[in-house]
This record gives sequence, structure tokens and C-alpha cells, in this order.
Amino acid sequence: MACIFCQIIEGKIPSHKVYEDDLVMAFMDAYPINPGHVLVVPKQHSELVSGLPAETAGRLFQVAQTVETAIRASGVRCDASNLVLNNGQAAGQEIPHAHLHIIPRHRGDGIRFQFQQKKAGREELDSIALEIIEKIISTN
Amino acid sequence: MACIFCQIIEGKIPSHKVYEDDLVMAFMDAYPINPGHVLVVPKQHSELVSGLPAETAGRLFQVAQTVETAIRASGVRCDASNLVLNNGQAAGQEIPHAHLHIIPRHRGDGIRFQFQQKKAGREELDSIALEIIEKIISTN
Repeated sequence: MACIFCQIIEGKIPSHKVYEDDLVMAFMDAYPINPGHVLVVPKQHSELVSGLPAETAGRLFQVAQTVETAIRASGVRCDASNLVLNNGQAAGQEIPHAHLHIIPRHRGDGIRFQFQQKKAGREELDSIALEIIEKIISTN
Repeated sequence: MACIFCQIIEGKIPSHKVYEDDLVMAFMDAYPINPGHVLVVPKQHSELVSGLPAETAGRLFQVAQTVETAIRASGVRCDASNLVLNNGQAAGQEIPHAHLHIIPRHRGDGIRFQFQQKKAGREELDSIALEIIEKIISTN
């Protein structure tokens, strides 16, 4: 079966579109976490962000910025927002076509990200940072 | 007191930097949710994404794409990742200087985003989409 987001982009499945340009489309999430929940989607099919051209990745976030500003200026109840891209199944990605959620938030809405943080040691951070830097250099 | 991220960017507070260019800097989160947790931060101070130039917003996400790819290629345990920007206090933003989290994820790590979704009615989506479109048009 064809990708549902590709079909929405091609107009084969109807959507409540709020924005479209040559690289990106944005439409209402039909199953909103809060009212005003929008998805920003690259037209090019890629499950992961790493598979997108840099221009498309940049545009995706610029469109998110524009739409987020518009949501807050609209009548949607919104003190704040989460911009969330779940990149891969183990991160909660449900549709295997990269998409950025814009989730309007307001005080007391009961939504939360459940996790634990603990202070990392300096040596651990040094070692991981070095590995990441090496990979950035070797792939660019 | 000056903004902690501005002080890190200016080098007044040490950090484990993995990337820097003219607009953006990325460094290890000292309180990682999972090992390899990186923050991507615009050099220009703005609490919210809406206050950043579009070029900076685009670059922020392009750098996130580069760093995320490098994290997955490194020795960090990582099946997937969440790219998360908490935009305002009611969305869980703790430091009032915009920053994008890259959170490495792996199966069974126990992290989850707690929320409820429900299918929205077509009329509700039509009405919200129209409001958002009007605001996009009036501010661009």
C-alpha cells in the first residue's frame, strides 16, 4: 500500500491543508493531541530526516516556524507549543514518512514527556562529543 | 543574570561542543535523557522560535539533521531519535533561549510522550485550518 502522506500530498486522500510550497506541505492532524495540531511534511518521501536533502530539512522547520506563529495568532487556545519530530519507530514514529508535529500547548493540559535525566560525567560527555565530531567531519 | 545559553555560546561557561557555525552551536546536554543527548542552539537570543530570523530557524534544523546523522553513526546506542523543541514555558521549556533537543532513543528505554488523541470532526478542522491560513497570509 502506498504511503498515506504521499497520497495526501498527491491529493489522492483529502486533508485540511494550511500551507504548501515546492518542498513542503502542512495540514491539520486528524487525531489532534490538542486542537490546532498541525503536521509539516516534506513532499519527498523519506522515513528519516537523514534521508532528506538539507534544503528540504531547512524549509521544513521554516514552515513550522511560520505555521506555529500563525497558530498562536489564531483563535486556537495556545500558551506555547511543542515542535516534535519522532525519527524512527523506537522514537514513536507511526507513519514511516518524516513529519514534524506542531502541538499547541496550554497550562494544565496534562500532556507531558515522561523521562528521567541525570547529570553526566565530564569524561563521558567528552568521549561522546569526540565521537560525534569525528562522524560530522567524516561525512561532510 | 545573563542567559546561560548566551554565556555558553560566548565561551564564558564551558560546554562539550560538537558543532558551531555563524548562526548555530550544538553541544552535549549535561543532563541527558539518554546518552548522546545534544542541544542545538541559535546564537541569537530569542526565547521563542517565532523571534528568530527564518534563515536561523532553517539552519537550526539543518544542523540538527547533520548532528543526528552523526550520532547514529557514532558508538552511541541509538535505534531512533526525537527532535524536540519546547516552545514556551507551558510546553516544558526550562531555559528561555530557544533550543532543539536531539534525544537518541532505543527500544525499551522507557521514555514516552504522555498524551491522548481523539479524532477531530471535519468542521472543526475546516474552521481551525481557515483561521491558520488567514494568519499565515496576513503576516507574510
